[in-house]
Amino acid sequence: MISERIVDMETNDFHVLLNKKAAECEAVLQKFLPRQEGFAERVIEAMNYSVLAGGKRLRPMLILETAAMYGAEPSMYEPFMAALEMIHTYSLVHDDLPAMDNDTLRRGRKTTWNVYGDGMAVIAGDGLLNLAYETAARAIENAGSELQMRRGIRALNVLARNAGIYGMVGGQCADIEAENRETLETASDEEKEALLVYIHENKTAAMIRSGFQIGAILGGAPEEDIEELGIIADRIGLAFQIQDDILDVTGSSEDLGKTIGKDAEEGKVTYVSLHGLEAAAEKVESLTREALEAMDRLHVQNDFLRELALYLVVRSN
Amino acid sequence: MISERIVDMETNDFHVLLNKKAAECEAVLQKFLPRQEGFAERVIEAMNYSVLAGGKRLRPMLILETAAMYGAEPSMYEPFMAALEMIHTYSLVHDDLPAMDNDTLRRGRKTTWNVYGDGMAVIAGDGLLNLAYETAARAIENAGSELQMRRGIRALNVLARNAGIYGMVGGQCADIEAENRETLETASDEEKEALLVYIHENKTAAMIRSGFQIGAILGGAPEEDIEELGIIADRIGLAFQIQDDILDVTGSSEDLGKTIGKDAEEGKVTYVSLHGLEAAAEKVESLTREALEAMDRLHVQNDFLRELALYLVVRSN
Repeated sequence: MISERIVDMETNDFHVLLNKKAAECEAVLQKFLPRQEGFAERVIEAMNYSVLAGGKRLRPMLILETAAMYGAEPSMYEPFMAALEMIHTYSLVHDDLPAMDNDTLRRGRKTTWNVYGDGMAVIAGDGLLNLAYETAARAIENAGSELQMRRGIRALNVLARNAGIYGMVGGQCADIEAENRETLETASDEEKEALLVYIHENKTAAMIRSGFQIGAILGGAPEEDIEELGIIADRIGLAFQIQDDILDVTGSSEDLGKTIGKDAEEGKVTYVSLHGLEAAAEKVESLTREALEAMDRLHVQNDFLRELALYLVVRSN
Repeated sequence: MISERIVDMETNDFHVLLNKKAAECEAVLQKFLPRQEGFAERVIEAMNYSVLAGGKRLRPMLILETAAMYGAEPSMYEPFMAALEMIHTYSLVHDDLPAMDNDTLRRGRKTTWNVYGDGMAVIAGDGLLNLAYETAARAIENAGSELQMRRGIRALNVLARNAGIYGMVGGQCADIEAENRETLETASDEEKEALLVYIHENKTAAMIRSGFQIGAILGGAPEEDIEELGIIADRIGLAFQIQDDILDVTGSSEDLGKTIGKDAEEGKVTYVSLHGLEAAAEKVESLTREALEAMDRLHVQNDFLRELALYLVVRSN
């Protein structure tokens, strides 16, 4: 059982290593955050507040690990680590807005709009998104060789595609639509499930896919490995999101640092509401197994990445 | 007098040419707009609604003209034309939100949030911003040579920098801050003017700078020309914005297709409120003269670009 393995892991040094790597990611991120000065001071303050809200840095950590596996250059992968976390953060800032999920707390801290006002939160998100691309583009402009440059542009494309309408934004759209009860009332269970999988694969898995693939692309990984990493990301991302649905039912607000039980209260369709808790837990198991099998097929092995993938899925918060 | 020249121009074929070029820009834009399909259909519909709201396409037109002057490839400059207009459009969609300017009409048409709801408008803006970078990145990935690729990345950097906290987003931040009366009550007239110039140079001129420089960068223009084009853009952009302040006082809602007199009503600091209408009009004249002088210094001349620069400033709507 995967959940037993995780309990095991808690007694060994996975968590020590995880914290060490999170601190590494934090240090990289700090390098690319703008200084708060001039007339744009307030939006930069709001951006820094949002990024430094103490996430686990799992997405940049995936880049760090895959970059190490395939030997990418720090001057290339570090800016992409920062860019991916900036994009992840912008999406949280916009998701929390009163116009969207209307969340007042995230990770036990006031959300950005709740501190800086909605207007400033809108442009803080926009600022992060633009800065993400500027950060990645500057790294590519300074690449040491044509080969590095080509890999950088491919990575930028992956980053943009997974963030936009064919990725995260597409998932957010379907999510908003799903909250519209009228759309769902006439839908069959199959249609509901298709919609749900689309939301999960795009709203969450897409950004995890960027995490798994960008480091490999920058390091010149074999094509088969880039493809396998995409499959791993899709399985892990879907499992991650189903686990999130499970935690919304079984977790505590204190553990999660956010309001729980919201899904049920809002009558939201989730994997749990469609199939029940037990089937949801089984689905998490089978998706994780598929991800681990794909990981076995990679040309380069990385034990920490395996543990990290498991951790991503079976986290308690 | 510049305003007399414009009256003259209206009788010659500048407007015929302008409409022809706008149609060209429209056709380019159409090529890069996503099809409305799948679960992301609604956000894509909102994005298309926003882009196809019938603007004058002045920013992509600047790329079209400067690209022609320096001989850039259509496969490179067309995606950048679309990307710049997408970024311009996202900023309008977010600016119109209830959380920002709370505008219900733009160019005589319902604003995006007013049709699709605020949440969908937030992610439609995000979708446009991501798609802009994806569109530009894909063009660079498919560049025919290393030289083209290098120019493409430089252009992407200019695009991102001018859109973000060191450009448009920075200007929006200062604009929101300026609406906070308490900040301004203690400010001297010099401080107010510095803030105002910052807002104008960043909120508007930055995107015009992208328009003037990107085509030249993609075409491999001499460095002096790229620099002069930046100066032209700054002067024209500032003049454009002061003219906007003037129109808010002297124009009619019908001509502008938007609510006028809002600045005064909201007690907003504008060039007109600080210096009066006459001094504002003189400032527009002198800035325009400086822009035209810089244009004379370019290695390549383009009569239509001159007229376009004048038109940008002295438009009545």
